[in-house]
Amino acid sequence: MSLFSGLLGSLFDRTSSWISSQKQTEGDITALCERLLSTTGEASGQSLAHDILDKYATLSDDEKKAFFLYLRHNLDLDISASIAALSSYKASPDSKTYSAVHAAIEPRRLVLFTRLNAEDGATERLVEMRADILAHLSEMPELGPVAFDLQQLFISWFNRGFLVLRPISWQSPAHILEKIIAYEAVHSIDSWDALRLRLAPADRRCFAFFHPAMPDEPLIFVEVALTDHIPHSIQEILADDRPVLNDDAFTTATFYSISNCQKGLAGISFGNSLIKTVVRELSADMSAIKQFVTLSPIPRLAKWVASEGIDADGLADAEIAPALTAHYLCHAKRADGQPADPVARFHLNNGALIHAVHQHADTAPLAQKQSFGMMVNYLYQVPDIAQNHEKYAHGTVVAAAAIHSLAKKYNATD
Amino acid sequence: MSLFSGLLGSLFDRTSSWISSQKQTEGDITALCERLLSTTGEASGQSLAHDILDKYATLSDDEKKAFFLYLRHNLDLDISASIAALSSYKASPDSKTYSAVHAAIEPRRLVLFTRLNAEDGATERLVEMRADILAHLSEMPELGPVAFDLQQLFISWFNRGFLVLRPISWQSPAHILEKIIAYEAVHSIDSWDALRLRLAPADRRCFAFFHPAMPDEPLIFVEVALTDHIPHSIQEILADDRPVLNDDAFTTATFYSISNCQKGLAGISFGNSLIKTVVRELSADMSAIKQFVTLSPIPRLAKWVASEGIDADGLADAEIAPALTAHYLCHAKRADGQPADPVARFHLNNGALIHAVHQHADTAPLAQKQSFGMMVNYLYQVPDIAQNHEKYAHGTVVAAAAIHSLAKKYNATD
Amino acid sequence: MSLFSGLLGSLFDRTSSWISSQKQTEGDITALCERLLSTTGEASGQSLAHDILDKYATLSDDEKKAFFLYLRHNLDLDISASIAALSSYKASPDSKTYSAVHAAIEPRRLVLFTRLNAEDGATERLVEMRADILAHLSEMPELGPVAFDLQQLFISWFNRGFLVLRPISWQSPAHILEKIIAYEAVHSIDSWDALRLRLAPADRRCFAFFHPAMPDEPLIFVEVALTDHIPHSIQEILADDRPVLNDDAFTTATFYSISNCQKGLAGISFGNSLIKTVVRELSADMSAIKQFVTLSPIPRLAKWVASEGIDADGLADAEIAPALTAHYLCHAKRADGQPADPVARFHLNNGALIHAVHQHADTAPLAQKQSFGMMVNYLYQVPDIAQNHEKYAHGTVVAAAAIHSLAKKYNATD
Amino acid sequence: MSLFSGLLGSLFDRTSSWISSQKQTEGDITALCERLLSTTGEASGQSLAHDILDKYATLSDDEKKAFFLYLRHNLDLDISASIAALSSYKASPDSKTYSAVHAAIEPRRLVLFTRLNAEDGATERLVEMRADILAHLSEMPELGPVAFDLQQLFISWFNRGFLVLRPISWQSPAHILEKIIAYEAVHSIDSWDALRLRLAPADRRCFAFFHPAMPDEPLIFVEVALTDHIPHSIQEILADDRPVLNDDAFTTATFYSISNCQKGLAGISFGNSLIKTVVRELSADMSAIKQFVTLSPIPRLAKWVASEGIDADGLADAEIAPALTAHYLCHAKRADGQPADPVARFHLNNGALIHAVHQHADTAPLAQKQSFGMMVNYLYQVPDIAQNHEKYAHGTVVAAAAIHSLAKKYNATD
Repeated sequence: MSLFSGLLGSLFDRTSSWISSQKQTEGDITALCERLLSTTGEASGQSLAHDILDKYATLSDDEKKAFFLYLRHNLDLDISASIAALSSYKASPDSKTYSAVHAAIEPRRLVLFTRLNAEDGATERLVEMRADILAHLSEMPELGPVAFDLQQLFISWFNRGFLVLRPISWQSPAHILEKIIAYEAVHSIDSWDALRLRLAPADRRCFAFFHPAMPDEPLIFVEVALTDHIPHSIQEILADDRPVLNDDAFTTATFYSISNCQKGLAGISFGNSLIKTVVRELSADMSAIKQFVTLSPIPRLAKWVASEGIDADGLADAEIAPALTAHYLCHAKRADGQPADPVARFHLNNGALIHAVHQHADTAPLAQKQSFGMMVNYLYQVPDIAQNHEKYAHGTVVAAAAIHSLAKKYNATD
Repeated sequence: MSLFSGLLGSLFDRTSSWISSQKQTEGDITALCERLLSTTGEASGQSLAHDILDKYATLSDDEKKAFFLYLRHNLDLDISASIAALSSYKASPDSKTYSAVHAAIEPRRLVLFTRLNAEDGATERLVEMRADILAHLSEMPELGPVAFDLQQLFISWFNRGFLVLRPISWQSPAHILEKIIAYEAVHSIDSWDALRLRLAPADRRCFAFFHPAMPDEPLIFVEVALTDHIPHSIQEILADDRPVLNDDAFTTATFYSISNCQKGLAGISFGNSLIKTVVRELSADMSAIKQFVTLSPIPRLAKWVASEGIDADGLADAEIAPALTAHYLCHAKRADGQPADPVARFHLNNGALIHAVHQHADTAPLAQKQSFGMMVNYLYQVPDIAQNHEKYAHGTVVAAAAIHSLAKKYNATD
Repeated sequence: MSLFSGLLGSLFDRTSSWISSQKQTEGDITALCERLLSTTGEASGQSLAHDILDKYATLSDDEKKAFFLYLRHNLDLDISASIAALSSYKASPDSKTYSAVHAAIEPRRLVLFTRLNAEDGATERLVEMRADILAHLSEMPELGPVAFDLQQLFISWFNRGFLVLRPISWQSPAHILEKIIAYEAVHSIDSWDALRLRLAPADRRCFAFFHPAMPDEPLIFVEVALTDHIPHSIQEILADDRPVLNDDAFTTATFYSISNCQKGLAGISFGNSLIKTVVRELSADMSAIKQFVTLSPIPRLAKWVASEGIDADGLADAEIAPALTAHYLCHAKRADGQPADPVARFHLNNGALIHAVHQHADTAPLAQKQSFGMMVNYLYQVPDIAQNHEKYAHGTVVAAAAIHSLAKKYNATD
Repeated sequence: MSLFSGLLGSLFDRTSSWISSQKQTEGDITALCERLLSTTGEASGQSLAHDILDKYATLSDDEKKAFFLYLRHNLDLDISASIAALSSYKASPDSKTYSAVHAAIEPRRLVLFTRLNAEDGATERLVEMRADILAHLSEMPELGPVAFDLQQLFISWFNRGFLVLRPISWQSPAHILEKIIAYEAVHSIDSWDALRLRLAPADRRCFAFFHPAMPDEPLIFVEVALTDHIPHSIQEILADDRPVLNDDAFTTATFYSISNCQKGLAGISFGNSLIKTVVRELSADMSAIKQFVTLSPIPRLAKWVASEGIDADGLADAEIAPALTAHYLCHAKRADGQPADPVARFHLNNGALIHAVHQHADTAPLAQKQSFGMMVNYLYQVPDIAQNHEKYAHGTVVAAAAIHSLAKKYNATD
């Protein structure tokens, strides 16, 4: 990473000092934005972009809201002009009328965002700006189109073809590793020693996606345990005193934690690509690894149990719990017909299948509360992934026969 | 570069082999495109994208034309749906109606291009596809909107913030250097020995912009000579037997050749950024360098002379040539009021000024033919760049007093 | 570092697996050594070397002692053969007799050590072997020649020309940083947070020497504080709430901690080179830095005070303490006439001078006990370094006039 | 490579400028050497070392000879002191007497060479110095001990454990590639296009050993052709129009050219290690490659034919040539009983066996002259390498049964 950031960063490090000598501090942020939108030159534009992002960083919460409303209303697309341009294009479809459509329909805030992305570090700050907008969205739903425009921009910028997969290890730079500690969202990492236990042992792997314009910020990462069987509990995976296997004994790679890192990139999906790329990577490096599986939480199980009016008391230890869990994963649905469980939706949509459920699989308080300690393995079988995805897209929850039987057992006892 | 390409390339190198095992060869290219547009899964999408780009590479010229027409007509934006969506948005401006506008107005070919950019190497192939389209444009002007959409996509992807400046030297990888030889567009490089003379000596620099998704392809590069004065001729710069100066004697950096490398990126401007970034880079590294200047060709001088009915005979050696050249640069205009000379337009728009003109400055046959051997120095004075650009944007050709005097001399003799 | 280790390590990583397939485990370690000494082929030699180093790692303490005695007595140089070879060389000095001297005089253990150094990682294990020998040396002084031979070998291998200076920062790999924590010998680092405070702030630097054959092991490192004045206490340097200066305000680089990392390299001096190289490095990077100074402990002050029969009670706060310290540094000598203080000997021999002494400069218990909390600045003035060293080599303790005056004050009150 | 050299070089690049400010130009080179030998400080030592190497580079041939004689006679070991030290050690074998032996026996020139190796680039210059000495050795055999001492030093410095294997490809830096062109010693490379044909195709590999202290200078390199059979001629290997195979079709790696690069490192053997390391490397990367073989010249065949009084006329096309060649390789011996052919000695000693001989295998004039166009495959069978080497060490020429039969055929016709 230091290398990567070096490559991309070194030649641009001087940007700030060069630009700051031309600092244009007059005017509030909207005035600066208007100037940036009206400027034609790159030199003054880059300087203005720098000033605007600096100014944004100092805004109070209220000032930010005002700025967002400015983006929403003052820099919206011009509906009448758009309709007029479309009509012209219809009448006479050529390059000129076509580009006029583009010019009319593009909201000025999109032009602004693109011009703001003029120097090293700007992308990261725009991602943070979207995180700020999203944080205000429930309170100010009218900001939806602004968040949407940034999302479209990021979908383009953070295109799969531009992402870089990088292994994260105990050899990685500390300033990246401290972010792994901070961003771990599933099984929290309490200390550098705990991190070392996740990264340094020979049976652990970790991979992250990075984007060249944000070389010091992981976008998403996955933690992997290599084993000789499909694991049944997170305790088993995280046990310090687990036996050490030889490299050639590894047959199974378990994805036991996947964390998105950037709130501002919500709605831009990296998880599916990450899993596929890591499967490919590990397959190529360690040919003995034949099984790719997750050990996943079931975050909505307890909520569903409550909504169904099922007695949750003692469920963690109840004999029926696995069958109930299988039933929930296979049959509990949202209003739109998709599975109730968000983690299930994610892996099923990726083309995995439900392979097994495990009781007492996570003894941490949160897991007890959310899912009575139950966990589930989703299995990624490379030859079936595309087909499984298609089935899921057509409404079928793909699961092992044993899971379907188990689910039926619940109905039987029901 | 090998390093860089390594970083970005290594983990993706296996893409092809993985994907090829799932190859879906049935169907012609438009059928494949329709399938890619209708697929929902990333795995099958990536495989389809790969197949489509492979298939494209094998198309005959006529098949390509047919494919371009398909992109133009079958995958165009839906005008009626767009107008309807805009009306809905106008009536009820919220997130839903807003994203519906986006969905309606986005031509399906843009979705296709984005999905095609799914794996390492795809960006480069899309750039080549646009080069193919541009090559057919005069013959098939209706393809304008297709070229325009790709241009918009590339403007987003090749955003200044994503470009990487890399020094090119005799230590650079051979597979990059052979491209420098191939792409040099101003003063051609005939052999590896000639290349060595451009890169290895202590008074030579070369810089290129790269994009992380095309690590082996320079986008644009500039060749720089370090001297203790502003040079008067290209012969002087390229002379093998020039005196060797100490590093601290360099006061002047002369940009004597700027070459765009990718035909498919025509219309996406990198030159201005490249010059500014290199100026910053050299300023930071070599504090004694105070003058940044070009030694530029004047490609339309002879055409203008002809169009004016001026007798070109003996002009290369005529005493009046410098005055005539100054006059041409300052006063010859296109229909739109901008300077007639394209190189002048480029540097003046960047914020440079016309500093000096030189006779017998390029003895090569092409230069003799285009400009009677005349060349010109454009001067980049860092503190004045933004202001010069603004002046130019308002119609003023900025030039040294001596150039204005010289231009007047021509009028006087006229 | 990960990069560096990658470069040097990657291609050799497979060594072990290849070799282990040919493992030759029969025989105890001395039998294996005899076989290695008698083998002629590189392939079997490399395998044997691997086995010997593996076996060594499993030896008990007593077995190690026995092995050391074998090295000492069985693999010593052949005195008679050496004298005979020297006589032949004297009689007929040519290539043949000369190389015969070399063959005779070289103890077989040196041949063994060289052959053991056959694969990646071997150098590090030989350095550890010498650390083991040194740990037994006071108990088994007869091992002196074995330790001496390894020292000679290491002086050749760890030649200044082969050392690599690398900045250590918060961007450095965690597996290197944990060694910085472990090896810090002057002002201990208690946690990763404490380490971050030493590395991440803009006014901190750290540099280490590495050797290409031990890319994951620092040999020595120095921690540097950048300030706008010469610091008076370690509390001042390590204060979390110190004011943040601009980069161009730094005028002074203070070396406040230098730690040797490898016990097995005792007697091979890196400190002098490290300081000189870092001075050069910082001078080149930050031209405003003009003063290079240490803030050093005075580890033998209390012992000297005791040996002189001076009353140490209340000395930490006594007005006379600075004068006494100046006197000690300038005039207290060992039996061989060199300064009594080892840190003084080191810096004076490097060409520094005694610049200032400070009371209450280190409030840590160890410093209170060793030196009543007194510390000293040694000043490295680049133009005077060579001359200062020469003066010191001829018996003069070089110190600022103020220090000499202060020392005199002590005598006066004495 | 640029990376590597960057790592090792970057921080030392400023050495020269720092040191040159302290330049001590007075005195001839021997006076400077005496000063370096008598100095105690590193700072002045480094500066002196620099001056001495600079001065050496300017010496005329006669001055060099005088300098070499100074090294030979003035800086030789002290025989009487050595004998005295050995006697003391015999009488009282302890650390002190032991180190005294070392001090006495070490010629002062060895101390000088070690001190000269004080800065970046010095190692390379010492290697060149030995090349100069070797060039004068036949004329001045008394310089043997000087060359010997440098050889011993280089054997230590260029220890196998310190060498770095690096792939050489068309992605390698041009300044390294031009050295491959220059150093190719077997089948010469005429142009950059020819080089490209050796490096860029998918069925070509090249590897070199480097030393960290000489990052821009390959020590030895090998060119490898990947094929699906053992090749019969160099024309076949170098044919531009050869069929392109898929990666998984490669079963055989043929080492068709091995070149030592540094004359000053003559007598320090890298070839055996290089072949073994490349075999390991290719085995790990391309598991389908099972055969490792050379296509080697037979440089002394024609000389032997002449010495045997055999009629060489028409031998290139004669039916008997293969049998004669097999006989020569198996039975023609030097005075010391080893094979007459130097290339055979090299590969047999490495543990290879003679696999096949080929007629019309090299149509180049030199090969026609040296060996009537005959070439030979030596086969490296990994499991047998150690054993083959041992057999060879005990006097057996290991060859395939077919070669022995062929050799007998020659005797039969003889």
